[in-house]
Amino acid sequence: MKEGFKEDYFLLVRRLRENSRLGGIMGILHWDQEVIMPEGASESRAQQIGALAGVLHEKIIHPEMGKLLDRLPMADENGFTHFEWCNIREARREFNMATRIPKTLVTELAELSSRAHQVWVKARAENKFSDFAPVLKRLVDLKIKWAGYVFPQMQAYDANIDNYERGTTQNDITPVFDKLKAELIPLIKSIKESGYHPDTSFLSGQFPVDKQEALGRQISEDMGFQFDKGRMDVSVHPFCGGSHPTDVRITTRYQKDNFIESLYAVIHETGHGLYEQGRMQNGRDLPVSEALTMAIHESQSLFWERMIAQGRPFCLRYLPLIADTFPNNFKNVTPESFYEAVNVSQPSFIRVQADEVTYPMHVILRYELEKGLFDGTIRVEDLPGMWNAKMKEYLGIEPPTDTLGVLQDTHWSGGAFGYFPSYTLGAIYASQFYNALIQAKPDTEKQIEAGNLASIRDWLGVKIHQQGRLLSVPVLVKQVTGGILNPDHFLDYLKNKYRQIYRLN
Amino acid sequence: MKEGFKEDYFLLVRRLRENSRLGGIMGILHWDQEVIMPEGASESRAQQIGALAGVLHEKIIHPEMGKLLDRLPMADENGFTHFEWCNIREARREFNMATRIPKTLVTELAELSSRAHQVWVKARAENKFSDFAPVLKRLVDLKIKWAGYVFPQMQAYDANIDNYERGTTQNDITPVFDKLKAELIPLIKSIKESGYHPDTSFLSGQFPVDKQEALGRQISEDMGFQFDKGRMDVSVHPFCGGSHPTDVRITTRYQKDNFIESLYAVIHETGHGLYEQGRMQNGRDLPVSEALTMAIHESQSLFWERMIAQGRPFCLRYLPLIADTFPNNFKNVTPESFYEAVNVSQPSFIRVQADEVTYPMHVILRYELEKGLFDGTIRVEDLPGMWNAKMKEYLGIEPPTDTLGVLQDTHWSGGAFGYFPSYTLGAIYASQFYNALIQAKPDTEKQIEAGNLASIRDWLGVKIHQQGRLLSVPVLVKQVTGGILNPDHFLDYLKNKYRQIYRLN
Repeated sequence: MKEGFKEDYFLLVRRLRENSRLGGIMGILHWDQEVIMPEGASESRAQQIGALAGVLHEKIIHPEMGKLLDRLPMADENGFTHFEWCNIREARREFNMATRIPKTLVTELAELSSRAHQVWVKARAENKFSDFAPVLKRLVDLKIKWAGYVFPQMQAYDANIDNYERGTTQNDITPVFDKLKAELIPLIKSIKESGYHPDTSFLSGQFPVDKQEALGRQISEDMGFQFDKGRMDVSVHPFCGGSHPTDVRITTRYQKDNFIESLYAVIHETGHGLYEQGRMQNGRDLPVSEALTMAIHESQSLFWERMIAQGRPFCLRYLPLIADTFPNNFKNVTPESFYEAVNVSQPSFIRVQADEVTYPMHVILRYELEKGLFDGTIRVEDLPGMWNAKMKEYLGIEPPTDTLGVLQDTHWSGGAFGYFPSYTLGAIYASQFYNALIQAKPDTEKQIEAGNLASIRDWLGVKIHQQGRLLSVPVLVKQVTGGILNPDHFLDYLKNKYRQIYRLN
Repeated sequence: MKEGFKEDYFLLVRRLRENSRLGGIMGILHWDQEVIMPEGASESRAQQIGALAGVLHEKIIHPEMGKLLDRLPMADENGFTHFEWCNIREARREFNMATRIPKTLVTELAELSSRAHQVWVKARAENKFSDFAPVLKRLVDLKIKWAGYVFPQMQAYDANIDNYERGTTQNDITPVFDKLKAELIPLIKSIKESGYHPDTSFLSGQFPVDKQEALGRQISEDMGFQFDKGRMDVSVHPFCGGSHPTDVRITTRYQKDNFIESLYAVIHETGHGLYEQGRMQNGRDLPVSEALTMAIHESQSLFWERMIAQGRPFCLRYLPLIADTFPNNFKNVTPESFYEAVNVSQPSFIRVQADEVTYPMHVILRYELEKGLFDGTIRVEDLPGMWNAKMKEYLGIEPPTDTLGVLQDTHWSGGAFGYFPSYTLGAIYASQFYNALIQAKPDTEKQIEAGNLASIRDWLGVKIHQQGRLLSVPVLVKQVTGGILNPDHFLDYLKNKYRQIYRLN
């Protein structure tokens, strides 16, 4: 490698490090806002976030950055390590995405999303989709325009997907989702018709918040979450945030009469948190170490929440601790009935409350509607009717109101089209990864029964967390599982598990 | 005013607002670090703070800022409102202070203070002043150099004082401190020789932390602290921080066997917090609304801690609440004995533990040593000996180690020379302000007995908090009290109070 390119790379790294630190600060501002900020500070906080976003944007599109990124790719790729080349590639992508859009469109999108959010909140509260329709239509139009600038060679919806799930297109997703539909719709119907209802009575009762917190913290720690490099707090909606791999902050929420929701939120967010804490040591302030895509992030949270914590070995291991924590409720509860109780499957209107069998239907429904909105085959006005028809077809239920239907999610109001598929891709990857783990370590279930969860964390760490963005998703999946994105494991897992629970055929 | 100047002013305001928001973010980073950050994040946080400080510095010295500040003063001052002119003046001062120092000196000072802090921590722990002496000497040299660049027309020590207490010089401070010495040294001696020791036995015992917290929160709220625009938390050293007048965060610390220290820390920090929450509404993101000087800030905390909360009416009002909170300890305690117990005066080695009579001696000692270091009459090697001699002369006690003497404060290790006088200037202003309040509202003591503390907050708000930086310190003090900086009220207050408590003459 010529010396000049080496120096350019160092200058690039210095800029990327600075941006990473400013990004970390943004993480603290958001966490603080959701967890701890006095309510009277919301306006000043919005202005602080706006000021920092402006600074970061200036840094990302800085002319000097442009010059470095113009010069560096002229070097032979082979003159750089893979690690170095990855940072150059990531910086280029971020620079392109930020500079290709005209400033007027950036401003219009920012203003519209902010207004659309308020309009949506009101429309949802009042069950009036017609109030939301005009801004939603405008948002779709702007996001089609946005796609034309950012990724002109892609279809508009693919460009929006690429924003969250780079390298994955409708061509990858549609056949996978069609297969899920073909197999899950009958499964959901069979479960419904089985007439079997697991006993969940012991999950109702009074569960003191301090005991819920101690339980969640214990299990999070068992999973390998490092509390000297992270925190666990309370927020309205559980999330994983923070400012750095040494400062990862998960949240949950507590209801006195339901500990399961809080506990599984802790496990889910810990899954995200382990990914962040496990990033490669020597690139922590550089894009190369960042989480790969939204679906891979989600694969980590769902891996722990579903593949591990909704499994038999986990129920066997943790029922005694749970029974110790809430002695009044768990007299005479067997591991098997606990396992069944945390795996109830039942169609419901609200995506975020859905179980692992019905959840993909919620996602596929949204994917199909977004696809239609972007290719012009669906009009915004038609969404409520189509939503309800698909709910009927996929889950056998029809929302009585749009509040419980097309108006339920916040995503569209923020212009986040193309995000939903990541949830289900994440679930599929999670089951593929779990399968690979079982192949690699056949005693995994025994380890879980022994409470040795951190060894699983270590495996995920080496295979996924420490890989950062060194590999594309397909290459990573190939390396971990030997295969490609494939819903078969996920379907086999769901069919075997739920046929057994619901006593089907 | 010519139109061009108006436009320049708007451009300046836009820059100042942005800087204010970035400064608020810095406040959150520091608060988070002291209160809530996982310990493993200290290195990444230092880097985040460094990155943001770099951004802020770039903004402050931005060439466009320089151009605006060169053009604006050419406008007739009368063409601007006082409010506007104040923002221009403050921006100019900040720009000058940031641009007049060569970058090499900035870097050397930053690196040296960082290293000096570590050296000091170790030297203090090991009681080895000789280890600290070389870096301290270098720090003084650099701060003399710094003064020559920033305020070339001032004496070097005056320039350092001006950094915290603008407009106040040794010429103002020395005669005031000499007067304090002349009157307080004999008072301290008389107290010691009185042989009287107020009963403080009821302040020892076990005080549950949750009850301490509830008590502190109640009193802070009575004082007028708005918890919807602020928080109260725990940190190693109590402080007042936050990010904005709508986001003011005070801290305290709790010891199970001592509630008084925590309670008075809450009151002290609430005093600072009320100043911040009370800033003028229409200039909150501009320098015009910021706290005037360190001494005026300290006058607000000491006003509440000493003039109010160590006074008889407060003791009368709050003893019942305290006795309700800690029923075992406060059986048969009279308001008078509670009042005496919170006003014990006794020479001690450590400044931060000193009472209001002996505290000024700690400050004067440091002031005289700093003065000598900067005018060359004192050598760093002579500090321990001179420290101990002055302790003997002013307080009648001699520190057995340098850890309990010359090595106790963090200030010098950070290069913060000229800061100490603000503490005692603040105490003097506090007593002058209290006197003015009594003149303006003769029923103040009755209001305190009735628990109507917020009316005092309102008076301070109008007279001081909302004034921001519109007036200089002398003009503000004149406007509030009718006089100038004058230690007489402070001395009368101390003499009357402590002669009565200690049964003197």
